[in-house]
Amino acid sequence: MNHDPRGVPLDPVDRIRFPVDPWALVETEPSRDDLGTTETLFALGNGYLGMRANPEEGRDSYAHGTFINGFHETWPIHHAEEAFGFAKVGQTIVNVPDAKTMKIYIDDEPLLLTVADLHHYRRTLDFREGELRREVVWRTPSGKRVSIRSRRMVSFTERHLALMTLEITMLEGDAPIVVSSQVLNRQDGIDEYAQRARASEEFDPRKASRFAARVLEPRGDWHSERRMILGYQTAHSGMTLAVAVDHTIETDNEVEELISTEPDIGKKVYRVQAHQGQPIVINKAVAYHNSRGVAVRELFDRCRRTLDRVRQYGFEHYRDAQRTWLDDWWAGCDVRIEGHPHLQQAVRWNLFQLAQASARADQLGIAAKGVTGSGYEGHYFWDTEAYVIPFLSHTHPGLARNALRFRVTMLPKARERAREVAQLGALFPWRTINGDEASAYYAAGTAQYHINADISYALMNYYAATGDSSFMFREGVDVLIETARLWADLGFWRTDASGGRSFHIHGVTGPDEYTTVVNNNLFTNVMARANLWSAVRVLRDMADHDPDADARVRTRLRVTDAEVEEWTACADAMVIPYDEALRVHPQDEHFLERELWDLENTPAEMRPLLLHYHPLVIYRFQVLKQADVVLALFLQGDQFDQAVKRRDFDYYDPITTGDSTLSALVQAIMAAEVGYQEMALSYFHLGLFVDLADLHDNTADGVHIASAAGVWNALVHGFGGMRDYGGHLTFDPRLPVEWPSLTFRLRSHGTLLDVRLEAERMVFTVVTGGELSVGVRGREVVVAPGDPVEVPLAGQGPVLRSLEGHHPVIGDLRADGTMITAEVPEPSAPLDEGPPRLVQEPITPSPATT
Amino acid sequence: MNHDPRGVPLDPVDRIRFPVDPWALVETEPSRDDLGTTETLFALGNGYLGMRANPEEGRDSYAHGTFINGFHETWPIHHAEEAFGFAKVGQTIVNVPDAKTMKIYIDDEPLLLTVADLHHYRRTLDFREGELRREVVWRTPSGKRVSIRSRRMVSFTERHLALMTLEITMLEGDAPIVVSSQVLNRQDGIDEYAQRARASEEFDPRKASRFAARVLEPRGDWHSERRMILGYQTAHSGMTLAVAVDHTIETDNEVEELISTEPDIGKKVYRVQAHQGQPIVINKAVAYHNSRGVAVRELFDRCRRTLDRVRQYGFEHYRDAQRTWLDDWWAGCDVRIEGHPHLQQAVRWNLFQLAQASARADQLGIAAKGVTGSGYEGHYFWDTEAYVIPFLSHTHPGLARNALRFRVTMLPKARERAREVAQLGALFPWRTINGDEASAYYAAGTAQYHINADISYALMNYYAATGDSSFMFREGVDVLIETARLWADLGFWRTDASGGRSFHIHGVTGPDEYTTVVNNNLFTNVMARANLWSAVRVLRDMADHDPDADARVRTRLRVTDAEVEEWTACADAMVIPYDEALRVHPQDEHFLERELWDLENTPAEMRPLLLHYHPLVIYRFQVLKQADVVLALFLQGDQFDQAVKRRDFDYYDPITTGDSTLSALVQAIMAAEVGYQEMALSYFHLGLFVDLADLHDNTADGVHIASAAGVWNALVHGFGGMRDYGGHLTFDPRLPVEWPSLTFRLRSHGTLLDVRLEAERMVFTVVTGGELSVGVRGREVVVAPGDPVEVPLAGQGPVLRSLEGHHPVIGDLRADGTMITAEVPEPSAPLDEGPPRLVQEPITPSPATT
Repeated sequence: MNHDPRGVPLDPVDRIRFPVDPWALVETEPSRDDLGTTETLFALGNGYLGMRANPEEGRDSYAHGTFINGFHETWPIHHAEEAFGFAKVGQTIVNVPDAKTMKIYIDDEPLLLTVADLHHYRRTLDFREGELRREVVWRTPSGKRVSIRSRRMVSFTERHLALMTLEITMLEGDAPIVVSSQVLNRQDGIDEYAQRARASEEFDPRKASRFAARVLEPRGDWHSERRMILGYQTAHSGMTLAVAVDHTIETDNEVEELISTEPDIGKKVYRVQAHQGQPIVINKAVAYHNSRGVAVRELFDRCRRTLDRVRQYGFEHYRDAQRTWLDDWWAGCDVRIEGHPHLQQAVRWNLFQLAQASARADQLGIAAKGVTGSGYEGHYFWDTEAYVIPFLSHTHPGLARNALRFRVTMLPKARERAREVAQLGALFPWRTINGDEASAYYAAGTAQYHINADISYALMNYYAATGDSSFMFREGVDVLIETARLWADLGFWRTDASGGRSFHIHGVTGPDEYTTVVNNNLFTNVMARANLWSAVRVLRDMADHDPDADARVRTRLRVTDAEVEEWTACADAMVIPYDEALRVHPQDEHFLERELWDLENTPAEMRPLLLHYHPLVIYRFQVLKQADVVLALFLQGDQFDQAVKRRDFDYYDPITTGDSTLSALVQAIMAAEVGYQEMALSYFHLGLFVDLADLHDNTADGVHIASAAGVWNALVHGFGGMRDYGGHLTFDPRLPVEWPSLTFRLRSHGTLLDVRLEAERMVFTVVTGGELSVGVRGREVVVAPGDPVEVPLAGQGPVLRSLEGHHPVIGDLRADGTMITAEVPEPSAPLDEGPPRLVQEPITPSPATT
Repeated sequence: MNHDPRGVPLDPVDRIRFPVDPWALVETEPSRDDLGTTETLFALGNGYLGMRANPEEGRDSYAHGTFINGFHETWPIHHAEEAFGFAKVGQTIVNVPDAKTMKIYIDDEPLLLTVADLHHYRRTLDFREGELRREVVWRTPSGKRVSIRSRRMVSFTERHLALMTLEITMLEGDAPIVVSSQVLNRQDGIDEYAQRARASEEFDPRKASRFAARVLEPRGDWHSERRMILGYQTAHSGMTLAVAVDHTIETDNEVEELISTEPDIGKKVYRVQAHQGQPIVINKAVAYHNSRGVAVRELFDRCRRTLDRVRQYGFEHYRDAQRTWLDDWWAGCDVRIEGHPHLQQAVRWNLFQLAQASARADQLGIAAKGVTGSGYEGHYFWDTEAYVIPFLSHTHPGLARNALRFRVTMLPKARERAREVAQLGALFPWRTINGDEASAYYAAGTAQYHINADISYALMNYYAATGDSSFMFREGVDVLIETARLWADLGFWRTDASGGRSFHIHGVTGPDEYTTVVNNNLFTNVMARANLWSAVRVLRDMADHDPDADARVRTRLRVTDAEVEEWTACADAMVIPYDEALRVHPQDEHFLERELWDLENTPAEMRPLLLHYHPLVIYRFQVLKQADVVLALFLQGDQFDQAVKRRDFDYYDPITTGDSTLSALVQAIMAAEVGYQEMALSYFHLGLFVDLADLHDNTADGVHIASAAGVWNALVHGFGGMRDYGGHLTFDPRLPVEWPSLTFRLRSHGTLLDVRLEAERMVFTVVTGGELSVGVRGREVVVAPGDPVEVPLAGQGPVLRSLEGHHPVIGDLRADGTMITAEVPEPSAPLDEGPPRLVQEPITPSPATT
């Protein structure tokens, strides 16, 4: 395997088994060794319904999984030691009855891939068709050859629907063939993951492991000649579910059909006397409907309506619609990297995952694993707001709006939670499905108050990208106001000796969970400040543009002018910790007082740290799970000057473990911005292949959706250098020297823009919509429909030598315990004394400064 | 109820129901309202075996309880969110089969106290006899009168033995009487507390609540005509238990006897045709034996031997021995307060509890509740070392040695635990029975590294009081060395700008659990420093006095000179945080940066804070659960000058909630020392009546043993002004003006000293042992056997005006957020500029300074 200068593999994927294809993920041989990973990588979903890529015949599997976004069971959280306000209600996504399985017997011999004598095998996840296909040629134990081809699709246009087709043809010899197509409550609600976790001695807090008893209680089953329906209700959360399956068969062979349903299983069995060369085609249409409480019989009817439509329109209708939907998806967000097809494939796989996670979440949240696994228990985190919504806002803003509306609907529970932690306003839960805080470890959970500001950030990001004041003024503003209230109440004022007043936020945890419960976490304070300013700004926008709406919201939420003034005062006086000696932003007020963790001498088998050290040990050191200050530098980039961004990056990069998958791509973006181009590309590769190469050893639990969004962020914000502060797109590109070009699309205020970046130029083309003014390294460029604009560039931007050797400060600290002394070499003095990095000369980037 | 000037009731006990008796706790009417409390207050125990004061007839009860020190069940701790190094094995004391119950039926009507028509009722816990007695005259529903008298004793001399006598006499009328005496595995191992906790919506982290299934598995039962034995093994910890019961009856009435045993019950039934005036006396001898793993049949034999001796010697023999044992106990530790019999009674009740908790713990620990309840799950905490051992060392040092040996035996597990948290040396568990860390909430558990230093403190305290170098050199020193190693490894060196090097300890929690995981907690650093110095000092003592032992321990523990030098260096350079502006010791490095909690405006129903606020909220403020700095000022009093003690006390007292029972008596001691005599007395009263008046509303869970020891500490150290730094007793007394005299006894290096304190003089008398030199306010006094010494005193010591108004500093902070400014009035300037408070003129105390 080839590696880049920083030791990151240039292509960590086995290309014999997974050949490069720009529009598909392809597997050419099955393996038992990484079943869990491939089940995730080839999984299908539409944001509502997800099916892991278990084989039709059922075995072998790591964990069968079919998930419905938000369909969860609740359970009382028993804390080993209880305290007031600890989260009470656990919520875990339920693995719903499996409708994927179609067992295949030839001459009464079951097909079992991992032991079968296969003449051909190919599995394809097609990013344009939105379909999983498998082709197998099997030499049966009796020496016959049979072709088995299957197609599986979870519909983007009909979110309750999944379609499967199985085509079996005897290539050599005749044989009795049995297909037993099932819908099966396989685990009686007991999750295989849970069993696995319990069985093993290890623990991994990132895995779900909750249910010890039946979760899905049968509430009726029904069948007709070609339809089966099973109904369930969860034991504690009371949610209802129905799954219905229709079958049809097309063949010239003789067929006998059987059908039956019981509480936990429905079976449609075809017994076929198959003759060589006479194909058997079985179509299986599956509908899932669920509800928070509607009676199961009503869900039965909904399922019937979904399947009746399939009968009416036929499978091809939905396959065409799927293709059309995806054409539109790719038109809105495809990113092309010239000359590196393996990167191209990986980028598209990640973007496809974003479609599968968000397309039909409709007004549910987007879970950390989308609908591809039960990792993190199917919970919604800040990942959506910090990583996914910025992508959606600028590509498919309707989906961003849906995800944001979900937070609006959680506001009443967020208000309750604020009361529980003795605050005004609203506090969104750190992790949740139903709106209740489900984080049972407050230090790295509830203490992450920054989720309030992340949600506000996403709202403002959407507002900037779309100008959708209708949504903002009617609903979004409520979130801004209630979160601003929390910040104003949570923080407190302090007067220093010289009479200066500042606003402090104590006892919170930032994104980096390797330090917790700190004072004036930089990320939190910067984001909270923006949150407060945003509330003020949107109220001002409302007063200016929609006085009626303004009056309504002020009355409804009892907003006074004094309160709005207080928010401004809090924001303006917010403490932004800065260390004058090191000239960097400490991660929190006392972060620099910690000892430095010696990452270089930490053995690989002791990583990730969280699985090998007691939290107390980790918390005692300067060591990061993931970007924290560096993320703030990106999200609130206009709040920091260029020189300090460099110094901050230099300081934090060497002590960031990247133990979280949320880290690498943010580091890629900021490495690109401050000029470490090689490093940016390395981090990009690490993020790009997180799942495709299972770099964090937990892809089996599901796709890392935030990382997938991070791939887009790294491409567009990192290499494309795009920023959108307040609705105006600007570009300061950093094209990797290895890439001939990078092309991406952006939507801004209704205009879809095609952006092509080469080393020496950028080309902007309006695809649809009206004209748009964008900034390129300080020069304004107006792009009108039908009139592409080419902007010449003078180069990739600054390219600095690598970071190695940049850390004498830290070396000093480690060697003799010296805190900081004047003789510490200044890592980036030239930047400080030179002009600001935002170049005065348009188009020409600033030179590398070291 | 009368109150003192600070609003503390002068006598919070209902004296109609609980009349004053200097040598007994007496109850004159039963009540259903406080069953749990009185079950605790009248409980019997000997440190090994404890029986709650449930009535003979079994009902009514709050919770039947019989506890054996260290007899526990283990269970896997399921953390709601797991992390590396979190405690894995829960340990909970088991409520063992109840042998107290002797059900009484007259005319087939059961006696049920709370509804019975009682002509007389008196329950007495006799501090000199070591016996619980109850006298009842009952008018039965059929109108007869019957006298029922019972006696119950848990033997101090035969720790496996409890004796009960029931005497029933028909006073009016004849009647058939049935006594069903039982030994009963009442709860099948399911603790009533647990059921109660589960049933209620409330939570209280201080209660035990663990078992959902059978804990005690029957391992055989056996009976003969007058003996019953039941055997058990715990389901998971595998501990074994046998309980055996002998019965005899003496009466002239006609008697029929039945006996039977089954796995969970043994019954001895007497059916008596009772005639008026003919007493029935039933004697019940009970033996409990347990083991970590010895077969139950072997325990059966041990029980038989215990009970056979009772048959041989008779009950009176053990009752005499009990009286003799207690005579010796009181000779060693009685404290007399003249003129206040209700205080006298309360003091003796507390001292009696110390006997009941420690007498026969032998080489087990002393649990937070002794053997009187399952509160805190029967765990051992630092309470023993910080509160109980200083009492035992100076009164009954053999018991102190036993408790310290228990820690020595835990050393191997403490070493393992240190490895788990990535440290060298040993880390003692915050709470445990079997030596494994059982604290499931690390922030207020494992993070309390100070337990290491507390144990070392207790070792040194014992060493100072006794000069027992034999124990110290052979065993104790191992603990000092391994704990010193942990401190040297846990802390780290830092060099300041001027080249000064200091030693820092980060990420720990002090005794005050209302702030957690802080840097340079004053208490921890001061105690760790002493720990390091102690290791060095004892090694030096060994080199000087026992070179062989020195060589042995250095070889065994691989101690090098360099290591010992390092300990000295760490200790000498230990950071002791001090705020120059406020001129106080911050509780931790950043404590003073916190907001001040507004205790005055916190409603009573929101106290204790821990039951009404999320930890994150509490941690954000300057508010204390219990004394932290102030405890350091006491335990390491020679490390602080008098003026700063006053300022620190002034600072912390108003922000200390006293939500922990460990707080009031420490505040009493330091209030006395710095001169707040009224306040000292108030705090003393609050501590003295913690259980007797159920001031913390949880006496039902068991006696607060550390608080009971605190009563002695407050009397001897607080009012008596005794300190023992390094084996030399000194006195700077602070007799409350309301008390004519205070008399106590102290044991030092084998000499038992009687100390009588009056306003104008102290009288020292050697009771046994050789002559002793003690210091009184700076003057050395030699007391020889047979030659009492009277030392005239000039007064009680400084008496300051009350603390109210002493907190302008804090007022400033609260009102306008000002951190600290120069214009803050200095609370105790005169003390600073005057001579040190330790008076130069012997005998005459320094005058009050304000």
